[in-house]
Amino acid sequence: MVDAAIVHGTADTECMFEVFGRRLPGARRYGIVAGTGRLLEMIRDFRFQDAELSWLRDNAVVAPRTLDWLSNYRFSGDIWGYHEGEAYFPNSPVLTVESSFAEGVVLETLILSVLNYDTAVANAATRMVTAARGRPVAEMGSRRANEHSAVAAARAAYVAGFDATSNLEAGRTWGIPTMGTAAHAFTLLHETEEEAFRAQIAASGPETTLLVDTYNVERGIETAVRVAGPALGAVRLDSGDLPTLVLEVRKQLDSLGATETKITVTNDLDEHAIAALAAVPVDSYGVGTSVVTGSGSPAAGMVYKLVARKDDNGSWVSVAKTSEGKVGVGGRKFPVRRLNSARIAVEEVVYVGDGPEASVAQNELERPLLVQLVDEGEIDPQYTGPAGTAKAREHRARVLAELPADASRLGRGDPTLPTRFVG
Amino acid sequence: MVDAAIVHGTADTECMFEVFGRRLPGARRYGIVAGTGRLLEMIRDFRFQDAELSWLRDNAVVAPRTLDWLSNYRFSGDIWGYHEGEAYFPNSPVLTVESSFAEGVVLETLILSVLNYDTAVANAATRMVTAARGRPVAEMGSRRANEHSAVAAARAAYVAGFDATSNLEAGRTWGIPTMGTAAHAFTLLHETEEEAFRAQIAASGPETTLLVDTYNVERGIETAVRVAGPALGAVRLDSGDLPTLVLEVRKQLDSLGATETKITVTNDLDEHAIAALAAVPVDSYGVGTSVVTGSGSPAAGMVYKLVARKDDNGSWVSVAKTSEGKVGVGGRKFPVRRLNSARIAVEEVVYVGDGPEASVAQNELERPLLVQLVDEGEIDPQYTGPAGTAKAREHRARVLAELPADASRLGRGDPTLPTRFVG
Repeated sequence: MVDAAIVHGTADTECMFEVFGRRLPGARRYGIVAGTGRLLEMIRDFRFQDAELSWLRDNAVVAPRTLDWLSNYRFSGDIWGYHEGEAYFPNSPVLTVESSFAEGVVLETLILSVLNYDTAVANAATRMVTAARGRPVAEMGSRRANEHSAVAAARAAYVAGFDATSNLEAGRTWGIPTMGTAAHAFTLLHETEEEAFRAQIAASGPETTLLVDTYNVERGIETAVRVAGPALGAVRLDSGDLPTLVLEVRKQLDSLGATETKITVTNDLDEHAIAALAAVPVDSYGVGTSVVTGSGSPAAGMVYKLVARKDDNGSWVSVAKTSEGKVGVGGRKFPVRRLNSARIAVEEVVYVGDGPEASVAQNELERPLLVQLVDEGEIDPQYTGPAGTAKAREHRARVLAELPADASRLGRGDPTLPTRFVG
Repeated sequence: MVDAAIVHGTADTECMFEVFGRRLPGARRYGIVAGTGRLLEMIRDFRFQDAELSWLRDNAVVAPRTLDWLSNYRFSGDIWGYHEGEAYFPNSPVLTVESSFAEGVVLETLILSVLNYDTAVANAATRMVTAARGRPVAEMGSRRANEHSAVAAARAAYVAGFDATSNLEAGRTWGIPTMGTAAHAFTLLHETEEEAFRAQIAASGPETTLLVDTYNVERGIETAVRVAGPALGAVRLDSGDLPTLVLEVRKQLDSLGATETKITVTNDLDEHAIAALAAVPVDSYGVGTSVVTGSGSPAAGMVYKLVARKDDNGSWVSVAKTSEGKVGVGGRKFPVRRLNSARIAVEEVVYVGDGPEASVAQNELERPLLVQLVDEGEIDPQYTGPAGTAKAREHRARVLAELPADASRLGRGDPTLPTRFVG
């Protein structure tokens, strides 16, 4: 596309591209935008190097003029978007890219890859956090996701309210609190479970978490408390019928005097399994596969569409696909969340026609949803790095408090807020 | 775990770790191992750099002795595994790592991340290829997967029989044939569809594929053939009720004299949608979301377990978790695929107790399944790079021909072959 536009002379046409999802995946009540901070750093650094350029040349993928253009690529446009951690609904214009056609089209796959994956994780994670009702939740799913996705997933889950991750690289890069655990392999390395527990306590102290279900949970707990004493930090359960088992384990720990020892559970949990454990004394959850794969919806389904272009006179012209099936809404968008007098959200209103520069809401009960992320190619640094990640997590907490109670329902259903286009 | 083992003096214990899946995800009939070639290159290059080591030190994650050990890390053990592209079944020992405890444990997350994601994609892709009954299938899902997963997905789909990818980086890195397409944005950039088609043909020639469903498919095809002539390569349909639409489009193309113009379809296809198009004249398929997200099973569910360790006398001791729920089979494994006299597979037999070095089958109707991938830290280069990828794709084709016809059923059900442990 870029090649054809450069050859044809339309590559420099000023365009506006929009990212949105036609529906919430999994018939959920709301979604949480995630990935923005990660994306901004990649847009900042997005270049074509010699290795890529020579491959494109050797394989005659694009014309020589296009190679020149790619070798000088540096995004120089504007990007507006929903704050990372913001709630979104069907057709919410979560990101708007204003640039030349070619500059914007080249970023399409990168933008969608990051937002579709990270948002899919956040959409799942936010429901797990709600289901956990204040109990800490840790992300432990690295091994069930692509090796790079694993780091992104830890970050997205944290943005959506998780408390920690077992992924050390996510700790290093994004400042996310990390936690470790021992696997069954560690117990099996030793002649006896007792020896394994002694080795772990020697390295990490009695406040560590011991995995007690390698052989027999009851004997495992007895051994754990005998070796660590009542100061034992926690026991981890990774198998069995958890609602029943947790009650038995709590009783046994208490009877052994380990009343402060916590119980953490980790056996293929998702939001529904977490909700089903609300009534038993679990102290924390570790979630793996289901959070890093979006709990049934592994891609958020966002698309990147051209919604306006400037004509030869410099006026914006709205454009949209109009054939059967997937009809779009063209034009520049100015989305706000309308609140009632108790400051609870009632509606997503998308004003069409105003540009995102119109960042002042119509009135105090309309919260504007767009923030400027990139200004003529300059990334706003407040949204990047560990600080941007922490900011996104705080934003999600504030926004969630503003949504109607209905938003926390786990069952399939309609979006909590309707989206209305005006103008 | 590594830290505790180093502190406790058990880090150097010789161990054997095994990768297997307890079941086939999605109740499928067989799986296809993928990711091995990619994984081997990463194991070869796996090092801890200053950035990681100083973060671990500054955050006191591990003891100083462990930092020293990590700074010198280089895998020096042996790895055996199923050939990439090989079929696998529940409990097939698809990878075996023989090394010190610490060297093997450090690789756990990397190994599982790569195999779980790539195999999930291959498991979905192989069914799509079968459903397409010889018609070409292209991978076009980059935008629906994490930006790094996208490249891995293109590779895994190719291993499983896909013909091409829209991901140029996968073409560059893994030698996969690439193809491009124009999106609705390209049409919408122009005043008219006709102008857009002319621009694309000027860049790519009449043998290009025109996207004809931006406004109205019938008028789009009329315009496409008028502009490109009957030599038009193909038209792409990305919306509508495809089984009906394809018939109409074929009729219209033929009536316009474009009898050689092909029809490619791309609208949220999965293996079931492809099967439903078998009776209409589709020429090729483009698959996005469903293949890169494993079509309902986004992680292959493989685990990495310690199955044996050497005792103080240097003898192997089998180990396995024995508590309720997830019981393992300890010991070294030697898997073979047993064939009948027509050389059709009838059973996966896993001999327990022999090491993978016993790579000669018991008789000619038992095909040994393990190949040595790493020998004392040295990666066998035949399995890496573009050549390894092509070899894996050929292996999958050979193996598929050996499976019973039942393997190609798309419905949920039991594995095509039973797995039997012997000894």
